[in-house]
Amino acid sequence: MTPTLPRRPLIVDTTLREGEQFAAAHFSPEQKLRLARALDAFGVEYLEHTSPVASPGSERDLRALVGLGLSARVVTHVRCHEDDVRRALDCGADGVNLLFGTSAVLREASHGRSVEGLLADALAAIRLAQNAGVEVRFSCEDAFRTETADLLRVYTAVDACGVDRVGVADTVGVATPREVERLVGTVRAAVRCDIEFHGHNDGGCAVANAAAAFEAGATHLNVTVLGIGERNGIAPLSGLIARLYLSNPALVGAYDLAALPALDALVAEMVGVNIPFNACITGETAFTHKAGLHTNAVLREPRAYEALDPGVFGRERHLLSGSRLTGRHAVA
Amino acid sequence: MTPTLPRRPLIVDTTLREGEQFAAAHFSPEQKLRLARALDAFGVEYLEHTSPVASPGSERDLRALVGLGLSARVVTHVRCHEDDVRRALDCGADGVNLLFGTSAVLREASHGRSVEGLLADALAAIRLAQNAGVEVRFSCEDAFRTETADLLRVYTAVDACGVDRVGVADTVGVATPREVERLVGTVRAAVRCDIEFHGHNDGGCAVANAAAAFEAGATHLNVTVLGIGERNGIAPLSGLIARLYLSNPALVGAYDLAALPALDALVAEMVGVNIPFNACITGETAFTHKAGLHTNAVLREPRAYEALDPGVFGRERHLLSGSRLTGRHAVA
Ligand SMILES: O=C(O)CCC(=O)C(=O)O
Ligand SMILES: O=C(O)CCC(=O)C(=O)O
Ligand SMILES: [Cu+2]
Ligand SMILES: [Cu+2]
Repeated sequence: MTPTLPRRPLIVDTTLREGEQFAAAHFSPEQKLRLARALDAFGVEYLEHTSPVASPGSERDLRALVGLGLSARVVTHVRCHEDDVRRALDCGADGVNLLFGTSAVLREASHGRSVEGLLADALAAIRLAQNAGVEVRFSCEDAFRTETADLLRVYTAVDACGVDRVGVADTVGVATPREVERLVGTVRAAVRCDIEFHGHNDGGCAVANAAAAFEAGATHLNVTVLGIGERNGIAPLSGLIARLYLSNPALVGAYDLAALPALDALVAEMVGVNIPFNACITGETAFTHKAGLHTNAVLREPRAYEALDPGVFGRERHLLSGSRLTGRHAVA
Repeated sequence: MTPTLPRRPLIVDTTLREGEQFAAAHFSPEQKLRLARALDAFGVEYLEHTSPVASPGSERDLRALVGLGLSARVVTHVRCHEDDVRRALDCGADGVNLLFGTSAVLREASHGRSVEGLLADALAAIRLAQNAGVEVRFSCEDAFRTETADLLRVYTAVDACGVDRVGVADTVGVATPREVERLVGTVRAAVRCDIEFHGHNDGGCAVANAAAAFEAGATHLNVTVLGIGERNGIAPLSGLIARLYLSNPALVGAYDLAALPALDALVAEMVGVNIPFNACITGETAFTHKAGLHTNAVLREPRAYEALDPGVFGRERHLLSGSRLTGRHAVA
């Protein structure tokens, strides 16, 4: 008998969509393909790309991405417009990630439309994509500032229409893990399809929120490499991997974990930022021990002050010595 | 009648102790005092300093810090040794932050002592500090890898002895917000004294964990400026402020929020790191909007894509234009 594997989340990397919305990101066509190959080799299950309607360059790059024939499924963001869906299908995308903004503030400040009107557009776009046989995801932007009744009306309608997945987006980064658990749990109880979570980091909880969404029943989690995205971004791939690994290494057993440092370095170089010193796993000092009490114990038993084994992630342990906090009689 | 104020956490900034354990930190005496003054002006309630027993420099700097006569209380980390407590008292600290490692792995790899033996030392150290009239905190290091029965035995014993506060430390950054809520809630039900939380960021959840600790009853939260500390650090001050502000601005009404950017910049410069691009509030692009759908909506109503008002935090909003994602017919 084969042992039962734990339920594990599928990773939707959106560096080529959300990441492109990071202020400093200006990916060239070659950079996009290089990054896509690296993410595919790492093992993410999905790559999300900017809508082909956004610009001629976006369409060209999406076609090239599809042409790579990667193992990862290539999905593209699109508005709930039939023309946009047709363009996505024509580009050969494996799936369309539809969305609209359901909160009152987005309805008033962004598109000026009612939930009913948008839902009608969404259902038409969904059917078009379904008829072409591609995967269909429909997401409510700004879900955490939307009336729960509106959310459930929309999610149950698209679920009844047979979408593969609904998305719950914390667009402005306001949710706490507890709120994510509550809302994803509510959606879980209301729909039969899969559930995707996308969370921004304005409140510093993007990683915790993604992990909480998984615990509450989400099947697909959005990340970008380094967490780049609008404003201060979303959940970083390395952070999510660290959190899931700590809970159960089997949750991330499908990925080439030792490739994370090179992946983060690649994107840092492409967009011209440093890997944050406090990045999980890939931060420069993530496996450096300084206080003497720590270094002395780690020499005997690394697990004393290490929950993650650096070797698993292609990193090395460093023990500093000679600071005023170290030495034989270390007390700090 | 005055309106009831919400329960709010007190901030224990430990940049001068945990932060000094960051690999790249080598604070000069002048830098420590400058930083202490800036944190005091910001409004943190406590400043934690490295043990005066760690080195002659640490003792000298603690005395100088006490000599500033700040509004913030100056507390110092000390081992459960009566000599260490005497030195802390002699330096004039307002309080002692005692701790010992209670997990099996720390008992074996670090100090080799039993919980009973350590508790006897702790009680003696606690009584000594109490007799001198200073504030006493006692913390269990590595609480999340410690048997709950051992934890409760220690916490209830020191609570019965009359400590002001017990500390719950996630020393290796393994806890999830849900686990923090559970453990802090258990401790809350078992002791009468205040509760402090200190959480590392190895799993990317330091901010979420600190906020969860507060929700579950913690009264004091540990941060450092930028989150600097051992390995990839602990909860950053700016991240905790962002998270608390999003939940209720009154929780952080006592602080000079507009001073955060300068505070983060000061420490970044002192330790030679960049402010992480994804830092809450103080990250370079934390208030920059790029996608056309976002910039168009934000021009009408900033709240559309902003949960935090940059002006409150001494920052400015930036709208990028001219990228392939923007323009009049923006679809991304
Ligand atoms: O398509 C989605 O689910 C997310 C869209 C987005 O980037 C957001 O709402 O922050
Ligand atoms: O004193 C404490 O509560 C925390 C000590 C520490 O830095 C840790 O356990 O990570
Ligand atoms: Cu987003
Ligand atoms: Cu610590």
